[in-house]
Amino acid sequence: MSKEKQRPEWVPEEAGTAFASHVMEGVNGGHDGMPGQTAGRSSPPFSRRRKLSVDDYVQGVLSGNRTILAQTITLVESNAPRYIEMAQEVIKQLLPYTGRSIRIGITGVPGAGKSTLIETFGCMLCEQGRRVAVLAVDPSSSVTRGSILGDKTRMDRLSRQPNAFIRPSPSGGTLGGVTRKSRETILVCEAAGFDTVLVETVGVGQSETTVRSMTDFFLLVMLTGAGDELQGIKKGVIELADALLINKADGDNIIKAQVAKEEYNRVLHYLKPASEGWMPEAYTCSALTGAGVAHIWDIVERFRHQMQSTGTFEKRRKSQVLEWVYTMVQEHLQTGFFNDPNVKKIIPGIEQQVSEGSISATIAAKELLAAYEKG
Amino acid sequence: MSKEKQRPEWVPEEAGTAFASHVMEGVNGGHDGMPGQTAGRSSPPFSRRRKLSVDDYVQGVLSGNRTILAQTITLVESNAPRYIEMAQEVIKQLLPYTGRSIRIGITGVPGAGKSTLIETFGCMLCEQGRRVAVLAVDPSSSVTRGSILGDKTRMDRLSRQPNAFIRPSPSGGTLGGVTRKSRETILVCEAAGFDTVLVETVGVGQSETTVRSMTDFFLLVMLTGAGDELQGIKKGVIELADALLINKADGDNIIKAQVAKEEYNRVLHYLKPASEGWMPEAYTCSALTGAGVAHIWDIVERFRHQMQSTGTFEKRRKSQVLEWVYTMVQEHLQTGFFNDPNVKKIIPGIEQQVSEGSISATIAAKELLAAYEKG
Repeated sequence: MSKEKQRPEWVPEEAGTAFASHVMEGVNGGHDGMPGQTAGRSSPPFSRRRKLSVDDYVQGVLSGNRTILAQTITLVESNAPRYIEMAQEVIKQLLPYTGRSIRIGITGVPGAGKSTLIETFGCMLCEQGRRVAVLAVDPSSSVTRGSILGDKTRMDRLSRQPNAFIRPSPSGGTLGGVTRKSRETILVCEAAGFDTVLVETVGVGQSETTVRSMTDFFLLVMLTGAGDELQGIKKGVIELADALLINKADGDNIIKAQVAKEEYNRVLHYLKPASEGWMPEAYTCSALTGAGVAHIWDIVERFRHQMQSTGTFEKRRKSQVLEWVYTMVQEHLQTGFFNDPNVKKIIPGIEQQVSEGSISATIAAKELLAAYEKG
Repeated sequence: MSKEKQRPEWVPEEAGTAFASHVMEGVNGGHDGMPGQTAGRSSPPFSRRRKLSVDDYVQGVLSGNRTILAQTITLVESNAPRYIEMAQEVIKQLLPYTGRSIRIGITGVPGAGKSTLIETFGCMLCEQGRRVAVLAVDPSSSVTRGSILGDKTRMDRLSRQPNAFIRPSPSGGTLGGVTRKSRETILVCEAAGFDTVLVETVGVGQSETTVRSMTDFFLLVMLTGAGDELQGIKKGVIELADALLINKADGDNIIKAQVAKEEYNRVLHYLKPASEGWMPEAYTCSALTGAGVAHIWDIVERFRHQMQSTGTFEKRRKSQVLEWVYTMVQEHLQTGFFNDPNVKKIIPGIEQQVSEGSISATIAAKELLAAYEKG
């Protein structure tokens, strides 16, 4: 339940401004015809490589070829109609090989130490023989500004692990675009044999809800000194979490972290659990010293075991896909509406009249819809 | 942030099933051509009265004529195209006289004693010379089953107060329908001179969020024995509240209620406030003995004063109207989609394929949209 806003989530900031729908991309043409140049930082530009066939991509991914894996993700991230179509064919063929990882979403306030934690946690998993893919969802990142998440340079130690694969946030622009790309990238990584997918997000817009909707387990990383940083945690985010992790529980902070843990456990007692049949708890850890990090995996394993035994695990995954289908449909309908020239033309006047109280909301809605249906 | 579901909020339980949109009502014709017979329990059936003109309604409401007030609400609650049009004209003329009340939303788990509290609170306000309208939002109520909220019989003492006006939940069927009717009923009551509007809701579907979106102050009524009843409080509802009220703080319960109050105050400390600049707190009261009930009004007054001084009060009201306009638009678009014969035809097959993993979500969305655009 986010704070009340001027408009619902799905209304663009400036109504009438074109906002890309990830469903529309394949229809209208996207921003970048050459995906490799914008999103494929981890591989050479698309245009300079020899053209791969659908089968090349599929076989490459299934055989665990990392270059082709990176190229496939670049293909998935492309906004150009011809690549989108190809990507969908590749995904279709990979689908039977997907779904076998545990998908862990990770969020937290800026400064909570998410990257360091992911690095420590990821390295530990790799050393245990797990294959770890790290993705990021950051709708604010763009071609020019670059992704602020998931950069290899930020996770130097993890990026050198042979069992790890790090992918920065796609330059999707809208949350919808980033969502499609991230969800499909999860599938591709699974088909390539990664058994643990960590999806990191900063708290931009609805990105926590989005990452929650594509993962099995959701981890909220927090700081010590409970309460004081609360201004940084968005409304409702605690209620998305399957576990709260108080990071930086080291040195002078250990006692404070313990206090914070107990406080948050109290709070969790009053909130509805994010996952049916799983009571979220708060834990402490130190990404720096590694203390408590091994325990995170124990919690995830316990969660998975419990959820799978009740069937909740699979049930939620199926729901997540269907929910996503209808979210894409909804976004497409909205894009069509707000990009309609007749609608665009009358929106400012209608909003003005509603604000002044000279027309009722019902009439305003009717007039907007009449304008839309005229087109 | 509600729990994850099979589909987003706006997808009907059984996709393809017709679900009435309150915007569509005026276009397609509604369920009941004779509003008085279904929704106007508090006034004689519409058909047997002489026909009032728009001006009759407007003048009647503005002069505080309670019979005409009730008839106007019945008109507003009608689903028949000709009445909807007339109602909109009436509302348009009343708009300049609206907005001068404080709108208080009240929710709580079943058994928390909402009705008794509203009765005690409402009677107190009436005795202080305030004019109190009590409305209810209950999307589950229907013609046949009757409204479970706001029944005059449940608030016997309040209904006998000359300054009180109680209106049961409209038989809107869908939340959207009930929302339109309730929002417009608030406006009509304000134009009739009611300075305090209490909007009660049971926690059906998204009704708390809806009532929050049409009120200034939102009160969550709870029971003593904090924590134990938490199963009854939906996720995110605490975060909608401007105040938590632990009811039934009487007799043996007083100490338990105090403990609950302190516990909830702790919890509130960790949650984002529902209203910008207002820190929600927990209080105890007894609707039975009246203890603590007068204090509720002090809190509301302090809230209003503070919100008005920062401009947040008016700002939120404007946002609420605009948000509602776009919600109606969105619901209309969705209704069009899910009622489309081509969409209805392919939905089961598409969902099946998505669940089996034989098509990707992106393709599923594309196929649904292609079917829609064909029509």
